[in-house]
Amino acid sequence: MNTAVAGVKLGVAQAGIKKVDHDDLVVIALAPGTRTSALFTKNAFRAAPVQLAETHLEVAETQPRYLLINTGNANAGTGETGIQSASQCCEALARLTDTDAGVVLPFSTGVIGEPLSAEQIGAALPAALHDLRDAGWERAAGAILTTDTRAKLRSAAVELDGQCCTITGIAKGAGMICPNMATMLAFVATDAGIEAPLLNEMLFAAVKASFNRITVDGDTSTNDSVTLSATGQSGVEITAGSEQAEHFAQALTSLMIELAQDIVRDGEGASKFVEIRVTGGESEAACDQVARTVAHSPLVKTALFASDPNWGRILAAIGRAGLEDLNTDAVSIHLNGALIAEQGARAASYTEAKGQEAMAAGDLVIDISLDRGDAESVIWTTDLSYDYVRINAEYRT
Amino acid sequence: MNTAVAGVKLGVAQAGIKKVDHDDLVVIALAPGTRTSALFTKNAFRAAPVQLAETHLEVAETQPRYLLINTGNANAGTGETGIQSASQCCEALARLTDTDAGVVLPFSTGVIGEPLSAEQIGAALPAALHDLRDAGWERAAGAILTTDTRAKLRSAAVELDGQCCTITGIAKGAGMICPNMATMLAFVATDAGIEAPLLNEMLFAAVKASFNRITVDGDTSTNDSVTLSATGQSGVEITAGSEQAEHFAQALTSLMIELAQDIVRDGEGASKFVEIRVTGGESEAACDQVARTVAHSPLVKTALFASDPNWGRILAAIGRAGLEDLNTDAVSIHLNGALIAEQGARAASYTEAKGQEAMAAGDLVIDISLDRGDAESVIWTTDLSYDYVRINAEYRT
Repeated sequence: MNTAVAGVKLGVAQAGIKKVDHDDLVVIALAPGTRTSALFTKNAFRAAPVQLAETHLEVAETQPRYLLINTGNANAGTGETGIQSASQCCEALARLTDTDAGVVLPFSTGVIGEPLSAEQIGAALPAALHDLRDAGWERAAGAILTTDTRAKLRSAAVELDGQCCTITGIAKGAGMICPNMATMLAFVATDAGIEAPLLNEMLFAAVKASFNRITVDGDTSTNDSVTLSATGQSGVEITAGSEQAEHFAQALTSLMIELAQDIVRDGEGASKFVEIRVTGGESEAACDQVARTVAHSPLVKTALFASDPNWGRILAAIGRAGLEDLNTDAVSIHLNGALIAEQGARAASYTEAKGQEAMAAGDLVIDISLDRGDAESVIWTTDLSYDYVRINAEYRT
Repeated sequence: MNTAVAGVKLGVAQAGIKKVDHDDLVVIALAPGTRTSALFTKNAFRAAPVQLAETHLEVAETQPRYLLINTGNANAGTGETGIQSASQCCEALARLTDTDAGVVLPFSTGVIGEPLSAEQIGAALPAALHDLRDAGWERAAGAILTTDTRAKLRSAAVELDGQCCTITGIAKGAGMICPNMATMLAFVATDAGIEAPLLNEMLFAAVKASFNRITVDGDTSTNDSVTLSATGQSGVEITAGSEQAEHFAQALTSLMIELAQDIVRDGEGASKFVEIRVTGGESEAACDQVARTVAHSPLVKTALFASDPNWGRILAAIGRAGLEDLNTDAVSIHLNGALIAEQGARAASYTEAKGQEAMAAGDLVIDISLDRGDAESVIWTTDLSYDYVRINAEYRT
């Protein structure tokens, strides 16, 4: 896979933050002229790097030139000391590259509440800078992982009016995953040129359709961040309202959906990939509410793990989702295309054998029709397994 | 323990609903003159017995004379057939006791979506009626269980102005437990006499302070029901606004809190009993929202299971609870009395040893202070263990 994006170089190093002999530090260098847009967690406890990155984006006179990412320590729940530490990391990188700390955006993921050593990171920065290369995406995808078991790297070539540009992105996240946005980091870059307001719009729309539609455990992290950088070095210029803009936005959204689904497939202890589609609601918000209630139900999730077509639990979750005056007789549920429940009861055509056949698949689609409007929503999630408990009961020890 | 309540007899039988040689049917007979108040699930998918019991309470000209309870089958998600089946069960009991079906309140718990055989229940009713006795509380407490491992039976003698009355109650519930009200059934009776409006008020207030404050997994069931019956046979009459009413209401609430906490302690796979207290909120609802978000966080629950003082997860859950303009620096967290976090970070006085000592206890109190108002709230919950997954992945198989 040719993942290179002209104007973007990535370098990796081993800072020994939590483990030794382990890639845990990434520097992404963006060529001058690159525009970067970013979205951050909505958790009120925003990690120090999130607070600092937001400040740098708001007050900097120039666009970001470096993304600085560490794993092994989230630098969250660290108070004023944490802010100082994140600043020191940015300053160290600025000194080494002869830039201003304000053009460095910091990102951290890992354990919450432990002090982050700026010295350790500073000591490893020269190695990361020395490693900077166009072909660095793959190693960087591995270096940003925590409890993930697989790297998440996606790339797409987009043809616009006979010209070609590239979009490449990496993501991490496996637990504490819930919309807005997940314990996840994602860094996406393109060599197309995109004006700032359009870049923001495209990022917002693509995240809404991708990272904000996934949930593993309902827990939104303190560190979620996603960036979109446009270097313009392919010569392709995308302007608002053009056909190219629409085409590019579609490609960007598809790539982010792939990354988002990669995160769910690698969800902590996940043995199933589950799409929950809710149709026929009075509003998208109402459909979303039902989809999330089903997706977060531990009883539904354990039944999914057991490949048990226990549709009663799905029905009970729909019933407690808080929709006003829900006509339960109008609700129907399909499992991988098989009608399992309608009119508030098991469908006449349903057999346990059909249900078990549908549930045996690794990929499941749960279709819930409310029959009270035209709105719809979709959520991607996983089951709840022994391994989820094991991973999260053992994570710190 | 002398549990008998004058005017209440309980009988148990084996109807073979899900298992053979297993108590699964209970009849509670209430003497003429008994007044009964009841509260039911707020899940939109209300089980057939819930719908029928509500109807019987609303339209009956006379007060309920029988409570008819089965386990092994929830008769939920069973549509019109389920209503017919619940009706037939009530009619069978009415025929055998020469009463009207409208004075029978039906209750079911167990698997959702399977047809309930009225014939099986009808065939076992004579044995249950033959078994009716004042001392039947203990066996009945065992017969209403599903995945519970222990019977929940509580009794209190209440002295009011030198006269004595008794309150006794039984409850079941272990999974699909969340406020409003839990997959739970509870039947409470007293030999005091209480007028209908006061009886309703007392039940409502006691449930709000007890069963609506517990959560195991956030799943509200289709069948939740709690009843309060007052026979008046002790000769004690309680009137609204009196000092006795207040005294009695306190005793009733205490007894229901005991039953509610018994349910949490026996929560599916529970190895910890956790009280989450949130103080200093702008409203009780805001405190409740924070307490429930922490209580439902799978990451907090798995850390509790691991006895890991991973306070960062508690902090992250508070941060995503949706409070507007939360000043994270004002938040502090105590674990069994030890200050672990303040000013958005680990407390200076905190040590990992102190945290581990606090977490080792089987009973935990997590105190969260928001410092933005005078309101408070409390929730009782459990951890999330391998056994929760095992029980719910294997429940139907």
